[in-house]
Amino acid sequence: MPVNLTPPENLLPVSGIRLGIAKAHVRSPDRKDLMVMTLPAGATIAGVFTQNRYCAAPVQICREVLAAGQPVRALVVNTGNANAGTGEQGLADARQVCEAVAREFGCEPGQVLPFSTGVIMEPLPVERIIAGLPQCRANLSEDNWVSAAEAIMTTDTVPKGLSRQFKVDGLSYTVTGIAKGSGMIHPNMATMLAFVATDARVAQPLLSALLREVTEASFNRVTVDGDTSTNDSFILIAAGGEDRPLIDSTDNKAYRALREAVMEVSVFLAQALARDGEGATKFVTIDIEGGRDRGECVKVGKAIAHSPLVKTALFASDPNLGRLLAAIGYAGIDDLDVGLISMWLGDVKVVTNGSRDPNYVEAEAAAVMKQDEITIRIDLGRGVAKDRVWTCDLSYDYVKINAEYRS
Amino acid sequence: MPVNLTPPENLLPVSGIRLGIAKAHVRSPDRKDLMVMTLPAGATIAGVFTQNRYCAAPVQICREVLAAGQPVRALVVNTGNANAGTGEQGLADARQVCEAVAREFGCEPGQVLPFSTGVIMEPLPVERIIAGLPQCRANLSEDNWVSAAEAIMTTDTVPKGLSRQFKVDGLSYTVTGIAKGSGMIHPNMATMLAFVATDARVAQPLLSALLREVTEASFNRVTVDGDTSTNDSFILIAAGGEDRPLIDSTDNKAYRALREAVMEVSVFLAQALARDGEGATKFVTIDIEGGRDRGECVKVGKAIAHSPLVKTALFASDPNLGRLLAAIGYAGIDDLDVGLISMWLGDVKVVTNGSRDPNYVEAEAAAVMKQDEITIRIDLGRGVAKDRVWTCDLSYDYVKINAEYRS
Repeated sequence: MPVNLTPPENLLPVSGIRLGIAKAHVRSPDRKDLMVMTLPAGATIAGVFTQNRYCAAPVQICREVLAAGQPVRALVVNTGNANAGTGEQGLADARQVCEAVAREFGCEPGQVLPFSTGVIMEPLPVERIIAGLPQCRANLSEDNWVSAAEAIMTTDTVPKGLSRQFKVDGLSYTVTGIAKGSGMIHPNMATMLAFVATDARVAQPLLSALLREVTEASFNRVTVDGDTSTNDSFILIAAGGEDRPLIDSTDNKAYRALREAVMEVSVFLAQALARDGEGATKFVTIDIEGGRDRGECVKVGKAIAHSPLVKTALFASDPNLGRLLAAIGYAGIDDLDVGLISMWLGDVKVVTNGSRDPNYVEAEAAAVMKQDEITIRIDLGRGVAKDRVWTCDLSYDYVKINAEYRS
Repeated sequence: MPVNLTPPENLLPVSGIRLGIAKAHVRSPDRKDLMVMTLPAGATIAGVFTQNRYCAAPVQICREVLAAGQPVRALVVNTGNANAGTGEQGLADARQVCEAVAREFGCEPGQVLPFSTGVIMEPLPVERIIAGLPQCRANLSEDNWVSAAEAIMTTDTVPKGLSRQFKVDGLSYTVTGIAKGSGMIHPNMATMLAFVATDARVAQPLLSALLREVTEASFNRVTVDGDTSTNDSFILIAAGGEDRPLIDSTDNKAYRALREAVMEVSVFLAQALARDGEGATKFVTIDIEGGRDRGECVKVGKAIAHSPLVKTALFASDPNLGRLLAAIGYAGIDDLDVGLISMWLGDVKVVTNGSRDPNYVEAEAAAVMKQDEITIRIDLGRGVAKDRVWTCDLSYDYVKINAEYRS
């Protein structure tokens, strides 16, 4: 059961972007597992990818295509198989899929970005994927975002998507995004795929800068289990054509509104990954303030978010302050003075000067821990920097899901 | 159920070292939870402690006492309460216990090392501990090592101890060690306490050097859950008096035999922590070779040992090669060429050139994974350095034990 996350009822079309979905039997006999997204001529695109050295074949090809600077005209996404750890054959397989997409949708193979997610180290069933492409073309439509959000799911229990609209100078703009991922979610991109598109017309360098800024504040701040996947990708598309005013500067009024909408959609999607984290029963926000710099705030947040002892205590609704403080202690801040630390669970102050707050009442802390959304706030007492990390708890179901994943 | 680990039937006395045990009701009404060890005049001692910035009060006092260079005459260990995150009061409490030990056993407070393990951030029940000391004194004996191994347990399911004897120049030497710890076990010392003693007479500087060397190859190579505790301590004691030949050089023949015995006992105890890891059903050895240096080998070993996805796959006996390779990929070796990697599960080669071995047969790999002792061997293909890490799997019971720990 995801934590306070329901499927999107409606996602707004982004003018010029069409989506086609198929059941290609990649791994399961009867589920949507193939999605093609086509982009209009003139669209700009930016992407960030996993930092795992074992990056999957499709990630390598995406990097090549984006580096070549060719206009991208289609994205193809399959679930059920990650095409990772598959060596030269995996690259050849992914290229073969791109070629088939180019033929089917009328573009060049070098204008296609491939994405795969699912089991690692098994050969990509290229023929079944290619056989599914005509089905994708047959139902290609601007109105398929919800269906596309479903088609990219793996162990996700709900599809994830959000739309935002804003107006600038009388013109209406749309931002729609979808994402998948619920295990192997780690800062710095982990088996997650996210696609956010807008009908704004944005110069490519500005789009890249926006993507990097948004990634840092959204997907790079969420962790489920600390495992960084081989396939993570976050793609930002600006589909606006020449009939739309060009946004090419951060000073542009439309840029500021766009930035806000893209940020809102991306943060929603990033949080959705943790809300639907494998086995999650709690959604947890970790706010760290009083750091010397943001880097050390994130270090502390991630040490807490990755601690199996903290995560099992969260699952048990146990205000186990010791485990939280121990995680802060080993976060890697060498000159940390633990005597300056304060901590709050929700609004309840639980730690003062590094020890239990003199007014601490366990029942009050336990009441906070019983909630399904918990905010842990820590003041390191050594500066003015702050940052935030989102995570979920570690439950029996996490073990169950991951022990049985391939069976 | 620990993995191939049974309680020690017998532990050999170390001449001059006496142990007394009590049920002091620190947390539970009817279990051994207090142990005092007395050392003869002239004994030398060395210790290493947690690197957690949130180190517990007793750890701070141990560091003070050892730095002062006074002869240590007694160790006092309580379970049930870690006296960590307890601030100034915790320090005062630990000092009060040391003072009471000094009174009861006839030494100075500055000659007593205190150790605590158990729940963090709760006040130490000083009065109950002090009230238990006469009971410890009443049963003080050289033959109490097995009982002492039991008295220092927390969530351990079996006591852990080993003795070794060797002869040099007609003289017989004994090394006996005990340890506790099964969760929060992480390289660089995590809630583990280990005490290894010998009746050899060893110069203090040499004893310290031996301790550091042995720690690196034993306790700093084992991890259960990556959580580094506030209280870890490993103490090495040489109790031999003036009637024994002084060992003060690594060239000494007795030193080499002693080093071997201390290493053997310490490696056994370190492995025992993972064998009895919380919820463990598998004992896993990760051998990494072909690295540029040992540091990067350990990085890879720990990335694998800490990955919840790898650990749940181990629990499921699932040869999920993808998760193993993904962990290698994010271990932090920036210039890693994954195309050079080979991997074996037991004797079965599963990965060649970074991809599934051409002769891979899943049934063979699955047969290895079903065993309760599994060796994962990785050749990084970039050098001649090698190293080793031990760990265990992540099971339902890990979650259960840690979700219910305080209830």
